[in-house]
Amino acid sequence: MSDLFDPMLAAGPVRDEVSDAAWLRGLLDAEAALAEAEADAGVIPREHADRIAAVARDGHFDPAAIGAKSVGVGNPAAPLVRELTARVGGEAGRVVHLGATSQDIVDTAAMLVSARAVDVLLGEVEACADRLAELAREHARTVQAGRTLLQQALPVTFGFQVAGWLSGLDSAADRLRAQRFAVQLGGATGTLASLGEQGPAVLAAFARRLGLAEPALPWHTERTRIAELAGALGSLSGVVAGASRSLVLLAQTEVGEIAEVAEGSGGSSTMPHKRNPVATVAAAAAAQQAPGLVATLLGAMAQEHQRAAGSWHAEWRPLTELFRSTGSAVHWLRTSLDRLQVDADRMRANLDLTRGALLSERVTTALAAETGRLEAHDAVSACARRALAGEGELADLLAEDDLVGKHLSRERIGELLDPAGYLGSARVFVERVLEKRKGTS
Amino acid sequence: MSDLFDPMLAAGPVRDEVSDAAWLRGLLDAEAALAEAEADAGVIPREHADRIAAVARDGHFDPAAIGAKSVGVGNPAAPLVRELTARVGGEAGRVVHLGATSQDIVDTAAMLVSARAVDVLLGEVEACADRLAELAREHARTVQAGRTLLQQALPVTFGFQVAGWLSGLDSAADRLRAQRFAVQLGGATGTLASLGEQGPAVLAAFARRLGLAEPALPWHTERTRIAELAGALGSLSGVVAGASRSLVLLAQTEVGEIAEVAEGSGGSSTMPHKRNPVATVAAAAAAQQAPGLVATLLGAMAQEHQRAAGSWHAEWRPLTELFRSTGSAVHWLRTSLDRLQVDADRMRANLDLTRGALLSERVTTALAAETGRLEAHDAVSACARRALAGEGELADLLAEDDLVGKHLSRERIGELLDPAGYLGSARVFVERVLEKRKGTS
Amino acid sequence: MSDLFDPMLAAGPVRDEVSDAAWLRGLLDAEAALAEAEADAGVIPREHADRIAAVARDGHFDPAAIGAKSVGVGNPAAPLVRELTARVGGEAGRVVHLGATSQDIVDTAAMLVSARAVDVLLGEVEACADRLAELAREHARTVQAGRTLLQQALPVTFGFQVAGWLSGLDSAADRLRAQRFAVQLGGATGTLASLGEQGPAVLAAFARRLGLAEPALPWHTERTRIAELAGALGSLSGVVAGASRSLVLLAQTEVGEIAEVAEGSGGSSTMPHKRNPVATVAAAAAAQQAPGLVATLLGAMAQEHQRAAGSWHAEWRPLTELFRSTGSAVHWLRTSLDRLQVDADRMRANLDLTRGALLSERVTTALAAETGRLEAHDAVSACARRALAGEGELADLLAEDDLVGKHLSRERIGELLDPAGYLGSARVFVERVLEKRKGTS
Amino acid sequence: MSDLFDPMLAAGPVRDEVSDAAWLRGLLDAEAALAEAEADAGVIPREHADRIAAVARDGHFDPAAIGAKSVGVGNPAAPLVRELTARVGGEAGRVVHLGATSQDIVDTAAMLVSARAVDVLLGEVEACADRLAELAREHARTVQAGRTLLQQALPVTFGFQVAGWLSGLDSAADRLRAQRFAVQLGGATGTLASLGEQGPAVLAAFARRLGLAEPALPWHTERTRIAELAGALGSLSGVVAGASRSLVLLAQTEVGEIAEVAEGSGGSSTMPHKRNPVATVAAAAAAQQAPGLVATLLGAMAQEHQRAAGSWHAEWRPLTELFRSTGSAVHWLRTSLDRLQVDADRMRANLDLTRGALLSERVTTALAAETGRLEAHDAVSACARRALAGEGELADLLAEDDLVGKHLSRERIGELLDPAGYLGSARVFVERVLEKRKGTS
Repeated sequence: MSDLFDPMLAAGPVRDEVSDAAWLRGLLDAEAALAEAEADAGVIPREHADRIAAVARDGHFDPAAIGAKSVGVGNPAAPLVRELTARVGGEAGRVVHLGATSQDIVDTAAMLVSARAVDVLLGEVEACADRLAELAREHARTVQAGRTLLQQALPVTFGFQVAGWLSGLDSAADRLRAQRFAVQLGGATGTLASLGEQGPAVLAAFARRLGLAEPALPWHTERTRIAELAGALGSLSGVVAGASRSLVLLAQTEVGEIAEVAEGSGGSSTMPHKRNPVATVAAAAAAQQAPGLVATLLGAMAQEHQRAAGSWHAEWRPLTELFRSTGSAVHWLRTSLDRLQVDADRMRANLDLTRGALLSERVTTALAAETGRLEAHDAVSACARRALAGEGELADLLAEDDLVGKHLSRERIGELLDPAGYLGSARVFVERVLEKRKGTS
Repeated sequence: MSDLFDPMLAAGPVRDEVSDAAWLRGLLDAEAALAEAEADAGVIPREHADRIAAVARDGHFDPAAIGAKSVGVGNPAAPLVRELTARVGGEAGRVVHLGATSQDIVDTAAMLVSARAVDVLLGEVEACADRLAELAREHARTVQAGRTLLQQALPVTFGFQVAGWLSGLDSAADRLRAQRFAVQLGGATGTLASLGEQGPAVLAAFARRLGLAEPALPWHTERTRIAELAGALGSLSGVVAGASRSLVLLAQTEVGEIAEVAEGSGGSSTMPHKRNPVATVAAAAAAQQAPGLVATLLGAMAQEHQRAAGSWHAEWRPLTELFRSTGSAVHWLRTSLDRLQVDADRMRANLDLTRGALLSERVTTALAAETGRLEAHDAVSACARRALAGEGELADLLAEDDLVGKHLSRERIGELLDPAGYLGSARVFVERVLEKRKGTS
Repeated sequence: MSDLFDPMLAAGPVRDEVSDAAWLRGLLDAEAALAEAEADAGVIPREHADRIAAVARDGHFDPAAIGAKSVGVGNPAAPLVRELTARVGGEAGRVVHLGATSQDIVDTAAMLVSARAVDVLLGEVEACADRLAELAREHARTVQAGRTLLQQALPVTFGFQVAGWLSGLDSAADRLRAQRFAVQLGGATGTLASLGEQGPAVLAAFARRLGLAEPALPWHTERTRIAELAGALGSLSGVVAGASRSLVLLAQTEVGEIAEVAEGSGGSSTMPHKRNPVATVAAAAAAQQAPGLVATLLGAMAQEHQRAAGSWHAEWRPLTELFRSTGSAVHWLRTSLDRLQVDADRMRANLDLTRGALLSERVTTALAAETGRLEAHDAVSACARRALAGEGELADLLAEDDLVGKHLSRERIGELLDPAGYLGSARVFVERVLEKRKGTS
Repeated sequence: MSDLFDPMLAAGPVRDEVSDAAWLRGLLDAEAALAEAEADAGVIPREHADRIAAVARDGHFDPAAIGAKSVGVGNPAAPLVRELTARVGGEAGRVVHLGATSQDIVDTAAMLVSARAVDVLLGEVEACADRLAELAREHARTVQAGRTLLQQALPVTFGFQVAGWLSGLDSAADRLRAQRFAVQLGGATGTLASLGEQGPAVLAAFARRLGLAEPALPWHTERTRIAELAGALGSLSGVVAGASRSLVLLAQTEVGEIAEVAEGSGGSSTMPHKRNPVATVAAAAAAQQAPGLVATLLGAMAQEHQRAAGSWHAEWRPLTELFRSTGSAVHWLRTSLDRLQVDADRMRANLDLTRGALLSERVTTALAAETGRLEAHDAVSACARRALAGEGELADLLAEDDLVGKHLSRERIGELLDPAGYLGSARVFVERVLEKRKGTS
């Protein structure tokens, strides 16, 4: 959390959902709900619960003071409980945090923070996806060179390319929606011993109060929930990485099929003519953070016995950072799409750079029906190479070729080399993605 | 794939599911099904499809020869197609691989290989889980010291600890079962252009033939399927990492609560008395491989345009390795559990190492009801420190303490310090995990 | 940078060296030195340079304001230059940042920040190493069970174990001292075109002014310096990870050979008797962050052309975080060592847990001279197993064994089983490490 | 090690240096040298050492058989010792492996294997660097568009771009040459107890015999050597990643400044006209493997006590894989460079795509001397935007601009916009890199 770098590296609304204030709110919400759940289960008097909940929810607690005291015990819940207890005071103070251990509160807070951050993140994803859906529809017939290994290949449409990103985004969002956010409550070693017979009842009420799932048993060292969340965020970042990589390539000076156009952004300090795709670049930079952070969280799953000696504490930073960077990646992609200017003419013009060679596969296919695939491949291949070497137009060279000329007329060759007529199922695929999307959201 | 290291590092049956032979089978199954699907859709004659499928399924193809030729085009599908075409020969030869691109075949093979490997892996997971369920049941009353930050804390049962691993394993298995294995088919740039109007029909038949899902559109550079698979394998490895870390700690000479007992295993070359937990150690070592491999796969999601210039090729090794290492991790954990000898007496004896201090929280709780939590905490804390310093038995020191003695009788203190009576909901939690498991499997 | 978590996760003095203030200072120092270097080379008038340097060094610049404006161009240098130019004003204002590009300033600042952070970090490492050297010397004869795969093996000394950590720390420090911190200066595309013939002269003066190395050419997309720095920090974190893992294991309730003793730290909120090794756990948690961060920085080396579209921006967060987490890891290890209480009696007592079996290798060796290694191994092995199973004292069982008894007297067996007499070169090794250290520091 | 994938994913000669055969050779060389060292120190008779060394060096050992037996003890050294002992037989057999532990042999083998693999790898790096030096020299005047954020910026030369890669390669090679390859010898717990007083003498002779360094003390759990090696390989892979990313971008259809030209390579199976940069793509794919593998090795540094319970075993696969992938990356880059066809005309032509806007910074600089930087920036910026929008030639628009026209003549504007005259220190920088290289190699 840096004033200097966050506007670039942690842009968008997700950042605030994992701030100190958000974590503190999570911790206090957990304490409040715990007290209320214990009242629900008859473990403590209702008025004590009300008093605790009121102090927890309305009081101002200072993250710096809590943080400073956390070093004595190794986590922020313990000093917060001391402070909360003191403020609540009296009889009610004696039952603050009853039966819980610090990890119960920190883990529950982590789930609350995560659930809220996922909500906000999904809003951003949805906005991106809506914009992509719009673009896919609008450009369903905008012909563009398909590119494989960064070489021009058969034509596609820009709408088709966009539909691929949309499909990825929707899949990543599905995973985020399927997270298992659950409360944590087990007491010192997970048995809820100090709650006697009332453990399960308190646990159920605690989950109900917070709108989180109730786990079969405490998961102090069973971290699949964290791992799945990390995986889902990593996958979402990966989708952004793919889309932003393609966008930045389309914006290259030599390609120029799109541009990022915005007031006050993208000017270079030294080259006034440049239109730097700043938002797209920022999306790419943010998305690159995820794999390492996911690896740290997966590595931290090796948690021993009833509370890990380090691997639990090792989760807080990467989880927070993963939300910040993924949120930033999606936000910058959204910004990039809002600024997107599509140059359909340039897309069409770029298709002509290879003088018809792009469609040579089509000729190969037509010819293969007569001659067999390998022979066709070799013959067309030879003509395409000569065309690219400047020995003539591909249509002419093909017509003059012994094998090709024998099977295909000059006119047929012309038809075959027209990119507009060779888009296969591109349009159908775009519609399938849009249709599927409609169904699920 | 190493004769020297694989028995340790890639143990168990999953290894074979991602071998050269398995990949080759996947590639050939894809070609066979493609031909059949094209016959289903009326694109090629049925007899050609039959011929292609027969050659693909029955022929022996040499991975080394295919591999050697792959360097010219950058993937193994292309030389395989050349070879298959030559063997099929004649008219049928001309329609081998019709409309497809190399990535269609390699990606579809990757999905087939993965689906089969996941099946086998789930079998191993199931065997582990069954053994854990047995142990959880058997040791639901076997009292053991709970340990937090590797310090003894409140008592648990061994069955309760085991139920936590079981719960993690079940969650990881659930994720594996939810994978979206889909065929890949798009042709050169994903539009299925050379199949004309028949693209979607062939795609549907292709999926049906292989028992894989049909994607909304080709996913040549939309890699969420790979990312989710990686995440699920990483999460499973993480569960093994946690269980094996705990097991190896329980097997320490100074703890001795379990041992790995097997004929011909675990003897040290220099110390004949040692009982090295070799299988557990091997599980831990294998599980550590996952985070880095998952990160590589997530990092490779930045795939541009219609086929990535490197990031696609970058997936093959880590995906294969991730199956090998996760498979090995689960297999070694299974072996470790098969060899497990539980020493319930030692578990009970270790509980007495702290001379009753372990249960001091219980005294704190009892006292807190009278004095408030902080006062109770401080008073009991002081006695516990004196007991540990050898100044007397905890029960005596507590009884003699002004504050404690005023509120709790000597007899009550004795009851409170008995570990067997302070297991909270441990048993209930074990039953919940076993019950849930019954429900889902 | 979090008030709530930083006291735990980013402890120690390194944090401040990579704060917003430190980065801002680096950026401004770079601008000041650039102006001065240009005056040195006769490119701009000396008084302009003085004016620029004075404003840069003395002025207060607001990180939040700079950060907010950074989003337009994608980095904080550009808005800072605008602001600096405005404040300098007049003729001098026109030559602020002359010939430089934003990356020149940000990269140079990164090197300044890193060099200063490494200095402070090395101070912490040195303090740790001094304490370890002291411990190694003090406990050079303190006998302790050696442990392999967490099983007791031949005896070592605590000083010997400590010397291993010291040796690792010294090696990691050596790498940190060998970093190639260099200025960055190339202008828009690295050619220093706008400085005409004066480019190399300005570059040399710039390096001299800042006390950094002069690179052979600009390294805008040649990131080996960052990679080496990342590697060195990662290696240092790894050493802390190893030492803290061992320390936390020695502090286990069942081992108890060390404890972390500190006023106001390590008490558990629910278990007053526990002495949680909080500092050691915090060290372990911090050290776990490094591998993922290093991977992110290595992955960001794929920088294209003259400035990367994302991978450069992707470095700032992980580099800052890597300093924060490594600094925290070392600081907590230092704290852990300051709190360290060594229990030499418990070390000796733990050696007796295996009833002499620990030294059985020695008997094997003595016997092997007579019988061959394998025969000796098998015979001693059998006795050791019987002793561990409680069938008698190892010395007796050995003396009664046919093969052993034939070759070794009862008295000789007794000698051989005395741990104090079987420490090999442990002491020599400790001295070598201390000696080597004296030589280098 | 896969027949199917290795030709693509583990190309080049490094693969064989980390094969099963190479590892086995390393293990046997270690055993041979140990025996000889013990004879050197007078610990065993010379003839025994000769016998052991002869059997170890000349015998054929089967990796599969050794591997199969390794599972009982967890590493391949133990069964190899059994087999070696049996083959040596007699009195000499009794002193095979004397005083050593399995990890001594495996770690020493790892160092031998690594040292040899690094040698071969450096040969590949050298070949790449030589080719790059040649290209840098040859194209020191070949003007090319510099590109930042993938937008054309000021002109550079192709030689200058190449010199940057060369500089990175040389730095990475320097790190590889500085590795600390040392023998490992400590016996069961590192004290060399069974060698009595002779430990240090044997250790010194062991190192001398193998041409490796002698460590101050055994480093069974002090893994900075492995971490540094990993870091150096990761850094080298990163340099390849950068160069190959740039090459693949230069080879784009729309850029076309280079091509990878080779008989029988790069043809697409479906698009005969394509010239896929297969070698460059393979280099990029291989280089992407490194960060995750380095992270795994750094993560495995958390090794406890005298031998780690898993983290040591966790090193073997990633270390081997890191050599394989880095070796492959460098080999494919070398192949890519061997196939490189540079199109200087296209480089010049691409410079004209922006109609002079590229040089507008130069106009800004000239103007800034008169008007101040910001005013100049804004005025030139405006003209450049109009030129790009097709409102006229930049030279005309500038001449007609009030501010620009007042200070610069039409002729001067023409000069300023000539790219050939604005290469700054590009040539000097190329020479510095070539000069530095001459000095060090």
